[in-house]
Amino acid sequence: MAFHFEILKKDETTGARLGRCHTAHGVFHTPAFMAVGTQGTVKALTPEELREMGAEIILSNTYHLYLRPGHERIRRLGGLHRFMHWEYPLLTDSGGFQVFSLNSLVKISEEGVQFQSHLDGSRHEITPEKAVEIQEALGADIIMCLDECTPYPASHEEAERSMELTLNWSERCRDSRRREDQALFGIVQGGMYPDLRKRCVEALGGMGFDGYAMGGLSVGESKERMLEVVSRTAPLLPLDQPRYLMGVGTPLDIARAVLQGVDMFDCVLPTRNARNGMLFTKGGRLVIKNARYADDDSPIEPGCSCYTCRHYSRAYLRHLYLAEEILAMRLNTVHNLHFYLNFMGEIRQAIAEERLKDWVKTCYAQGASEEENDPGEPDPWGSSFPQKLAGKRNPAPVRAASMK
Amino acid sequence: MAFHFEILKKDETTGARLGRCHTAHGVFHTPAFMAVGTQGTVKALTPEELREMGAEIILSNTYHLYLRPGHERIRRLGGLHRFMHWEYPLLTDSGGFQVFSLNSLVKISEEGVQFQSHLDGSRHEITPEKAVEIQEALGADIIMCLDECTPYPASHEEAERSMELTLNWSERCRDSRRREDQALFGIVQGGMYPDLRKRCVEALGGMGFDGYAMGGLSVGESKERMLEVVSRTAPLLPLDQPRYLMGVGTPLDIARAVLQGVDMFDCVLPTRNARNGMLFTKGGRLVIKNARYADDDSPIEPGCSCYTCRHYSRAYLRHLYLAEEILAMRLNTVHNLHFYLNFMGEIRQAIAEERLKDWVKTCYAQGASEEENDPGEPDPWGSSFPQKLAGKRNPAPVRAASMK
Repeated sequence: MAFHFEILKKDETTGARLGRCHTAHGVFHTPAFMAVGTQGTVKALTPEELREMGAEIILSNTYHLYLRPGHERIRRLGGLHRFMHWEYPLLTDSGGFQVFSLNSLVKISEEGVQFQSHLDGSRHEITPEKAVEIQEALGADIIMCLDECTPYPASHEEAERSMELTLNWSERCRDSRRREDQALFGIVQGGMYPDLRKRCVEALGGMGFDGYAMGGLSVGESKERMLEVVSRTAPLLPLDQPRYLMGVGTPLDIARAVLQGVDMFDCVLPTRNARNGMLFTKGGRLVIKNARYADDDSPIEPGCSCYTCRHYSRAYLRHLYLAEEILAMRLNTVHNLHFYLNFMGEIRQAIAEERLKDWVKTCYAQGASEEENDPGEPDPWGSSFPQKLAGKRNPAPVRAASMK
Repeated sequence: MAFHFEILKKDETTGARLGRCHTAHGVFHTPAFMAVGTQGTVKALTPEELREMGAEIILSNTYHLYLRPGHERIRRLGGLHRFMHWEYPLLTDSGGFQVFSLNSLVKISEEGVQFQSHLDGSRHEITPEKAVEIQEALGADIIMCLDECTPYPASHEEAERSMELTLNWSERCRDSRRREDQALFGIVQGGMYPDLRKRCVEALGGMGFDGYAMGGLSVGESKERMLEVVSRTAPLLPLDQPRYLMGVGTPLDIARAVLQGVDMFDCVLPTRNARNGMLFTKGGRLVIKNARYADDDSPIEPGCSCYTCRHYSRAYLRHLYLAEEILAMRLNTVHNLHFYLNFMGEIRQAIAEERLKDWVKTCYAQGASEEENDPGEPDPWGSSFPQKLAGKRNPAPVRAASMK
């Protein structure tokens, strides 16, 4: 089936949309969170477990799979879906982001990007054509244009030059694609400059992609700045196509971006934090190694329906974590991803019932009043609530309740 | 329900028995293999996965749980079954073996054994009474007497002194037990000396335990020597009680001990090897990292019904292993434990159908003709087949087929 995106409902008072995205491997509902399966596996979990917790689409990283085990090998073995036993919607990134973030010796030219493998130092070049070729070999349902993730901070001139390069590469990606069963998304760059983002959106729109991502965010700027860029960029994107905010973020980051009209998200936060013993709850973060949980017979989150909360106590999870047991990573990952996917389900439900704005406010209030929060560590729920959304000019300080 | 052991069938031509063991947490069938859950988890797996692959009883290590998270904590949290979400038969060892093997500063006296924690250097003493107290707090269905694992090699005098100490400790364990819902097993020591093993069996039998283990084996002696001791000790043990060979072994070690009348086994081999990428198949070992599997789309073992073989290729498993993914350990462990548990099921079936001896011969022939075997590494199926069983004085060299 050809890729297409249906908008089921538009929120009246915000930019939020409820949607359904059809791909060659089935449907996913938006707003959607994509768990990250970097090397062809969402770390510690099986595809069955992902499905059981409601995952409809996951993401894998082109850069990693290109280097190991190699995209041609995966193609010979029947493509990435079959290779990793995930027969549902799948997205691959272009590889560009990892090339830039995992390598110190990167050479960018108009032609493409040269780099050395972080595994063995071997030399490689990825051009826009090559990025498409690799992703066609992998065979994901949604593939991404090669872009340059504009560094932060960047001057207007630097951001403009970088954005122009991304536009050039995007056009070449579009022209080199051969498979019609894959959707190709363009990526909006332009740094923190609204005029550049606007120009980029218009140029990409003219090229005609199946969806549009916002890149170059969550790269060191403040959350307010990030949300500002999203809020000024998202409304410019074609109304009837999916919008994807790459690499974002905390649950509240996601909720706030949904309010601006974003449909798709990915982030390593739930999975990586799980492996580090940081668990998401409606009341805020729970650091499982804390001594206070040593004799705690309750689940991570009372009432949570995930496999971990149904069967294991905080005391046991703390023991597994301190004993460095593999099961700790599994059970923690199950809970955190369940939390994220359940969170997305609640967002969709709230849009359907026309109460998203109130729902987000309630969420925020819950996260901020959590007594378990350790004031010395960053709050996984994200930074302060946007004043505009809160509906008052001077909201109470976010963490006041827990810092008394 | 009180602990009891039913013998369903005795093999006519060997010492093998088919049995059913009733415990406070249900039944397990013998001959049985117990997966090892050292720190209150069979590494990488959930209890549901263990049940799905046919595990009826597992083992956990008193030494580790005593040090972390502490037996009193586990007791407060409802006992080990509840703590680890395993509501089926469970056995704990006495802790003695780990005290000796994980610590260099061990002081043994008539009273008990003093040692320093391998975790933090803290000082501890375990006496026979303490070993029972800890195991009663953990609450396993079968608990073990504290014994001294006689070192190898040991002179007759040393082995005798050590055996006498074990007898003294065994009696004190018996006298200090308070819980009636737990079975207490005695452990036969005596080194490699038949006269000492015999004396030990007789003395332990006089004390009246619920079952008997053979300890101090698989400690460096040859496999032939080990089987020799088993073959001379097992027949002396009470006919109507379960016999447990501790820490053994490869599939063929187990099959050969079953022929001598052993009912229970435990070993880290399937789980530890899995984490090291060594997979068991009917045809012998498969080392998943080998380059020959890079493009191999077949499962570990064609026809195997385990979750891993049903869904994943050798190529994918090799990729996961080289990428050091957690899922590699999970999937490999699933396969190896399935292999072991399936192997035990086949042993039980063969006893029931009065064809055990032939079945073991066939198994052995399969393992020896495996072309995948790498002659440079030890064969997981174990050492040479006992001449007596093979029925000829000079059997063909074991690995001849694969070494041509």
